[in-house]
Amino acid sequence: MKQIEEYVRSIEDFPEEGIIFRDVTSVLQDADGLHLAIDLMQEKLKELDFDIVVGPESRGFIFGVPIAYNLHKPFVPIRKKGKLPCETIGIKYDLEYGSAELEMHRDAIKPGQKVVIIDDLIATGGTNEAMVKLVEGLGGVVVKAVFLMELAGLKGRERLKGYDVESVICYPGK
Amino acid sequence: MKQIEEYVRSIEDFPEEGIIFRDVTSVLQDADGLHLAIDLMQEKLKELDFDIVVGPESRGFIFGVPIAYNLHKPFVPIRKKGKLPCETIGIKYDLEYGSAELEMHRDAIKPGQKVVIIDDLIATGGTNEAMVKLVEGLGGVVVKAVFLMELAGLKGRERLKGYDVESVICYPGK
Repeated sequence: MKQIEEYVRSIEDFPEEGIIFRDVTSVLQDADGLHLAIDLMQEKLKELDFDIVVGPESRGFIFGVPIAYNLHKPFVPIRKKGKLPCETIGIKYDLEYGSAELEMHRDAIKPGQKVVIIDDLIATGGTNEAMVKLVEGLGGVVVKAVFLMELAGLKGRERLKGYDVESVICYPGK
Repeated sequence: MKQIEEYVRSIEDFPEEGIIFRDVTSVLQDADGLHLAIDLMQEKLKELDFDIVVGPESRGFIFGVPIAYNLHKPFVPIRKKGKLPCETIGIKYDLEYGSAELEMHRDAIKPGQKVVIIDDLIATGGTNEAMVKLVEGLGGVVVKAVFLMELAGLKGRERLKGYDVESVICYPGK
């Protein structure tokens, strides 16, 4: 059986020079790869007591929804500013160039609910930290964050200190 | 048991006056609603012979990936311009205001492969028609398109004439 790493296509110098882009579409476009990725992420939640899966637009949807379906949990999307129709809580955060703003529906999480964050990638951790703040802003408790891939050289974990963070594939570099 | 329609929250005058926005997040944030939506969409594929699930960024990911997982098929994302790292085929199409551009990886579909398109909504059908053209541009055969919701008053089906189109919830208006 192929290992999950073998399904990931690596593209040099995308989106800019010096970056190795880890392409998740090559995992998805193989039925076995897609199954394996979701199963391995889900395994990290085994025996964990939690209420809600949260995932960000748009690659967080790819892994978050099947896991929510399989474990019979609600899925709460985090979206880019202006996409959600009801009352939201928002957060603005810095990117390498410029800034971004994310939103979540205010009624999506009730105080004390246990939340798992799912996304494809943890890199610098900026987006992940923003997601944690959104969840906590509604009184939710982040009990775990699970990523398919981690770029350990970018030290995203340092921004999530004190949280339970797991990744399926860990690349030592950037 | 609640009907699927009961999970959809309707918001008047979003994103602009006179529009009733059918909110899919209210379906997702209920574990039963999420399960039911995916199961009802998947039922439309029962006994259908096909090779690949295709879904567009970002709400097409929400329903496309769990269906691909459950039926053990590959999932091919259609993304906004500039997001996919390898060689792409693109299409530009008109929106009510302005235009949009979608892309798919060229190696994602091989000539003759049978494709099912999954999305949350068929409205005017512009995006859906663009997706069909992308798939056919790579030699794929669209054997079915399944949507959770249809705004029948916007006549999206007319732009997909000759294709097998099904929706789970059909709203007569716009």
